[in-house]
Amino acid sequence: MNTSTPTATAQEWLGRFDAALSGSDPAAAAALFGAESYWRDLVSFTWNIRTMEGRDSIAAMLAGTLAATRPSSWRLDGEATRAGEVTEAWLVFETALGRGRGHVRLKDGRCWTLTTMLAELKGFEERRGEKRPRGVEHGVRRNRRSWLEERAAEQAELGHVRQPYCLVVGGGQGGIALAARLKQLEVPALVIDSHPRAGDAWRARYRSLCLHDPVWYDHLPYLPFPDNWPVFTPKDKMGDWLEAYTKLMELNYWSSTECRSARWDEAAQEWSVAVDRAGETVVLRPKQLILATGMSGMPEVPKFPGAERFLGEQVHSSEYRSGEAYRGRHCVVVGSNNSAHDICADLWEHEAKVTMLQRSSTLVVRSETLMDAGWGRLFSEDALRRGITTERADMTLATMPFRVMTEAQKPVYAEIARKDAGFYERLRQAGFMLDFGEDGSGLSLKYMRRGSGYYIDVGASELVADGSIALRSGVNVTELRARSVVLDDGSELPADLIVYATGYGSMNGWAAKIISQEVADRVGKCWGLGSGTAKDPGPWEGELRNMWKPTHQPGLWFHGGNLQQSRFYSLLLALQLKARMEGLETPVWGMGPVHHTS
Amino acid sequence: MNTSTPTATAQEWLGRFDAALSGSDPAAAAALFGAESYWRDLVSFTWNIRTMEGRDSIAAMLAGTLAATRPSSWRLDGEATRAGEVTEAWLVFETALGRGRGHVRLKDGRCWTLTTMLAELKGFEERRGEKRPRGVEHGVRRNRRSWLEERAAEQAELGHVRQPYCLVVGGGQGGIALAARLKQLEVPALVIDSHPRAGDAWRARYRSLCLHDPVWYDHLPYLPFPDNWPVFTPKDKMGDWLEAYTKLMELNYWSSTECRSARWDEAAQEWSVAVDRAGETVVLRPKQLILATGMSGMPEVPKFPGAERFLGEQVHSSEYRSGEAYRGRHCVVVGSNNSAHDICADLWEHEAKVTMLQRSSTLVVRSETLMDAGWGRLFSEDALRRGITTERADMTLATMPFRVMTEAQKPVYAEIARKDAGFYERLRQAGFMLDFGEDGSGLSLKYMRRGSGYYIDVGASELVADGSIALRSGVNVTELRARSVVLDDGSELPADLIVYATGYGSMNGWAAKIISQEVADRVGKCWGLGSGTAKDPGPWEGELRNMWKPTHQPGLWFHGGNLQQSRFYSLLLALQLKARMEGLETPVWGMGPVHHTS
Repeated sequence: MNTSTPTATAQEWLGRFDAALSGSDPAAAAALFGAESYWRDLVSFTWNIRTMEGRDSIAAMLAGTLAATRPSSWRLDGEATRAGEVTEAWLVFETALGRGRGHVRLKDGRCWTLTTMLAELKGFEERRGEKRPRGVEHGVRRNRRSWLEERAAEQAELGHVRQPYCLVVGGGQGGIALAARLKQLEVPALVIDSHPRAGDAWRARYRSLCLHDPVWYDHLPYLPFPDNWPVFTPKDKMGDWLEAYTKLMELNYWSSTECRSARWDEAAQEWSVAVDRAGETVVLRPKQLILATGMSGMPEVPKFPGAERFLGEQVHSSEYRSGEAYRGRHCVVVGSNNSAHDICADLWEHEAKVTMLQRSSTLVVRSETLMDAGWGRLFSEDALRRGITTERADMTLATMPFRVMTEAQKPVYAEIARKDAGFYERLRQAGFMLDFGEDGSGLSLKYMRRGSGYYIDVGASELVADGSIALRSGVNVTELRARSVVLDDGSELPADLIVYATGYGSMNGWAAKIISQEVADRVGKCWGLGSGTAKDPGPWEGELRNMWKPTHQPGLWFHGGNLQQSRFYSLLLALQLKARMEGLETPVWGMGPVHHTS
Repeated sequence: MNTSTPTATAQEWLGRFDAALSGSDPAAAAALFGAESYWRDLVSFTWNIRTMEGRDSIAAMLAGTLAATRPSSWRLDGEATRAGEVTEAWLVFETALGRGRGHVRLKDGRCWTLTTMLAELKGFEERRGEKRPRGVEHGVRRNRRSWLEERAAEQAELGHVRQPYCLVVGGGQGGIALAARLKQLEVPALVIDSHPRAGDAWRARYRSLCLHDPVWYDHLPYLPFPDNWPVFTPKDKMGDWLEAYTKLMELNYWSSTECRSARWDEAAQEWSVAVDRAGETVVLRPKQLILATGMSGMPEVPKFPGAERFLGEQVHSSEYRSGEAYRGRHCVVVGSNNSAHDICADLWEHEAKVTMLQRSSTLVVRSETLMDAGWGRLFSEDALRRGITTERADMTLATMPFRVMTEAQKPVYAEIARKDAGFYERLRQAGFMLDFGEDGSGLSLKYMRRGSGYYIDVGASELVADGSIALRSGVNVTELRARSVVLDDGSELPADLIVYATGYGSMNGWAAKIISQEVADRVGKCWGLGSGTAKDPGPWEGELRNMWKPTHQPGLWFHGGNLQQSRFYSLLLALQLKARMEGLETPVWGMGPVHHTS
């Protein structure tokens, strides 16, 4: 039984940790960790995003990074707390180049989890609050330019007279959030997007789409949604927000612009990127190329025999708009995840005859339940009342190494299964194949592992359960005929429309398309943890592959994920880019081998 | 010496006050006020905006309002504080129809100032935070409309199939803030504005314009500026913000729409308003007509003899855009307030030969000084650190009856005069006529009294002091000739351009223009306190005339002022309109006679 206060316990550990680091003694530092222990570093020691597991791995990382990092000034940020055997505390610290935030969990006097993250670079602090810009320079100056004239000149020159340091391909939530971070850090950046207007990536989706994550989870950096914003944002309203945000944050955003090709110029150490801007070819020369094309960007369509014979319409879910034209007609939706459910419901609402084709089991969780059991602790009005700001919630999420998160989520889903037992039973009775992930760790982990395989139920499950949406599960497609889909159990479904709600390929497919297959293979698969579960082959990586961190291709970066990830990781990525622009030393530790190319 | 705690002191007074009100005893309640005392009521007792001065006035108000108001549930909101002889506390209370907030200052156990304001109507609470809308209705419904379709239908129908309850004429900051409040209260409203885009009222002004008030003072309701927003917003950036805000708040806003005429239909108890919407005439039938055309909306241009002979250009300051065309040419700016200074500086920056013509003395205060001595206490990063949110700051400002504010401001300006003595001396040496208001009460009071007569120095004063802007003060114009301005001291100024920075008329001029002179006269002068100083003739009114409260014309309201006023008073005005729409009893107390028609 620990009799000292949580703060004293944390303080004592931190003092010893600080001493070991100051003494350049990786072994001594590692000895302060438990046999099961994790150090999650986000750019502060490793200039990488890595989780070190166990003392040896921690000692190895320190041996490789301590000299350059020179960490110091460790102190607790607020009082520590204790729950059961775990004492936890927020930290702040400095490195040679930056200021960091951290978090520690102690068990039996030793560290169980440590998280360290770079928060800002010294001398390059963001201009916010007290440091915000003046806006207008008081005093008088002959021939000065107004804000409007400055902005117009910047927009006219960028990409022509002056080159952006960063080119962000893809202007959805990810590209926009990153560009806002870069703007704040005064890194010249340009976002290009193929749609006519910012926000169109959302507007162009199926008409009934709304965000399945609640508002508290979805804020963009700097400008949070107002408190009258709806819980679940309709897609077109989200489009309007992103468009306004792009304008208000003064981002340089070329809409109606396609990236045609990109080539790394080894000699110049920069990219040569050919883009088509509303019909005009422009060659850009950025130092850094960021693919923010969306982890759900590259549609994957199965190749069914006879697809060319089918006389109805075939669309990938990303192209589906509305069931309006299918009133009374036969529709087959291949897939059983979020988009499949939403599209089936939309077709049903338009009185189409719709069949869902479930090929493998799906994780379903009711939206209400997820709000209570999942997000609510960190992202809700209740969390806000408990003082958990968006920033604090993001950091709290970041303090969970993925192995720890996996274990922590299992009881949550066991409880959900109990609580909604009747709901799940009705789905099973209808033949729906359910799972909670191969190891029962639930939605968040499935999302991290494969970015797919789940449905957050906002109503369609009842249609499945009561047969309004016809379900065919555990079957696959043998072939398509002129007006039907033939299944491997020999049955045949009449079809006027086939929707492929079959997901997306790895983001390095974009590198293959834009740059070369060679570069795509060198970089390897994006996303996934190496969990050894379906669509996430091992070995264990412990962090998402290639996301928000250096890749094996100089100057090439991947940014994406949901709004929470875009918000949080955009800062870490922006700091890495800023450091490179300013010529700071950024020795990357722990670049692992590439195990999978897609 | 008071030995009880401030909270106990306040609590005791409040208990007795509550008892007197509950006992329907105006005399007993009034006896709890000091000989010098003020009760400022904002819509909660009076359905009006009134300051009662002294016990008799307070007793009279209570006698007229207590029965309908039925105030109850008075309690302190947080701990009371004491400074010198004054104990002060924040309050909450209820009325028959609403919930209120209040503030009290006690001296010697008696009330010195009391402020009561309506915060919300019971049963019509704003949908914010926990009460925010869901956004999408979960579940499935055949033929439901998406958010986009709902919005499109609303916009297509409003003004045609369905009539707005409120028509807001003028879509600047005032009209937009009010419309946002009305939207939150689910009052169907339409804003019309003559410019092509929302925000153009700012964009269309002279190129160098920026907000002279700092960012902390300028937030709109619901969606505050982000913390990277500049301190002084350039006009075009402000235009972009207002345009985005209008869209994001889902306001119904008709741009390129002019109000041609409005007529009160006594029988139908509604307005008939003819508007020209991009060439098409539409007749609207709102129940309430709100003129938000700006307290600086109706340009006032002096009629100088010979004006028709002048061969150069003559513009009112509101039409001035840029000095670009006047490089090396002679310009005369008539006036010596904000616009006059800004325009003189812009002309000088464009190397024009510019003369400022000062006809009467001006209050000048350096922007830096004003930030420290004036706004900083309530509106600054420092204030935020001290826990003074924008809402708290607004309410604090509201707790100062204008007589009290007048006295409180005098020492502030005495200190400013001392601090910037050198600055003022240089201006005097250049011949500039200075004042701090007739009674030394400074800028805020001058603004409340006449909305003019001052310059917040952001640089032009140095140009006046060093002669870069030629100054002619204490003179007036006798006549204009073909290429010159003749002054009453006999001198003659060559002129290619004359800018009339001569201010604006009373807002009821808009009523005369749109409705009729009869209605404008019935309503009387807007703005001003009746202070008996220049441009604000007595008798003393104690509150701004006709602003944000009922007028002598049924269904006619005036809204305007700076961003702080638009933000704060828009709620009070919106609550009055909402109450009327819902058919609540809104007996107005204290409609005074009209003393001035313009």
